[in-house]
Amino acid sequence: MRVFGIDPGSERTGYGCVETDGSRHRIVMCGAIGAPASASFSDKLFEIHRRLVELLAECRADSVAIENIFYAANVRSALKLGHARGVAMLAAAEAGLTVVEYTPAEIKRAVVGYGRAEKQQVQHMVKLLLGLAAVPSPHDAADALAVAICHVHSLPRGTPVWGPPSGEPIRVKPDPTSWRRYRPARP
Amino acid sequence: MRVFGIDPGSERTGYGCVETDGSRHRIVMCGAIGAPASASFSDKLFEIHRRLVELLAECRADSVAIENIFYAANVRSALKLGHARGVAMLAAAEAGLTVVEYTPAEIKRAVVGYGRAEKQQVQHMVKLLLGLAAVPSPHDAADALAVAICHVHSLPRGTPVWGPPSGEPIRVKPDPTSWRRYRPARP
Repeated sequence: MRVFGIDPGSERTGYGCVETDGSRHRIVMCGAIGAPASASFSDKLFEIHRRLVELLAECRADSVAIENIFYAANVRSALKLGHARGVAMLAAAEAGLTVVEYTPAEIKRAVVGYGRAEKQQVQHMVKLLLGLAAVPSPHDAADALAVAICHVHSLPRGTPVWGPPSGEPIRVKPDPTSWRRYRPARP
Repeated sequence: MRVFGIDPGSERTGYGCVETDGSRHRIVMCGAIGAPASASFSDKLFEIHRRLVELLAECRADSVAIENIFYAANVRSALKLGHARGVAMLAAAEAGLTVVEYTPAEIKRAVVGYGRAEKQQVQHMVKLLLGLAAVPSPHDAADALAVAICHVHSLPRGTPVWGPPSGEPIRVKPDPTSWRRYRPARP
């Protein structure tokens, strides 16, 4: 089963596709979509949508996971983010895929095991869970992979997946020694 | 010359196309796009985008005008509005059309002549300027026509238009007796 995660942004939209056999996850692709800073806002949206349509067709995802935002610095940045998120959801709907939304806390809880984890902890767990040599760069790509992993971890037990069925429930065992380093320093 | 105005909203998106020969304006089409309340948010966006693509092709507009929002009740409603606005701008970009944005004050100033006019005054002027028998309904359609008229009135003098060039600058002469009725009552 393949889950395509999207971390939308009008300047840079991260994406990451994760394949799972029910117990192990592997990365299919990840990256970020950006348009030249000089491009008009509608051209930036056009580019985000065009690339997402291409990528969704390329990776043959089964579902799309996207972060659900309730907070933004101000109304103006919420509006801008909404535009990018709108064309991303549209690309998924056009591909006939279900869009599943997760709050930042849900993503952190599913990936790190702690809803108020730091961004770096999440990125480090993405690296560990996918067996990568380094944290995916740019961070938008890592954030998109985190949303995809969150969806994989949120699937009800027994959801049919591709590959050899392991029969085991999906279990996340973070290495406590490795992520302690990323624990925020106490004030 | 034809200008397609859009008043985006996730529940209902108004649209209105205005044709001008440089001095007189006429309505080409107007209406509102809505999806069933039970539809998922991504399906609503899909419907808004699909219909706008169809309508833009049908009315063969030269440019698209859309309201530029800086204010919303809260971040959540700004985000929702941003989604609808994003797919609307995308439809215009896909049709190869320039998207021109106007603030609510610019629209009011161009249509009524007063940047802090009431919504009803704007709708009434839309009716007068387009020689309609009644204010277009629903109000989202009237608001979209107002954005289109704003763009028509904002065109620099000498912009080539279809139809007989009148040589006259576009002039708005509101009937003072008719819109006084819509003036808000003093507190």
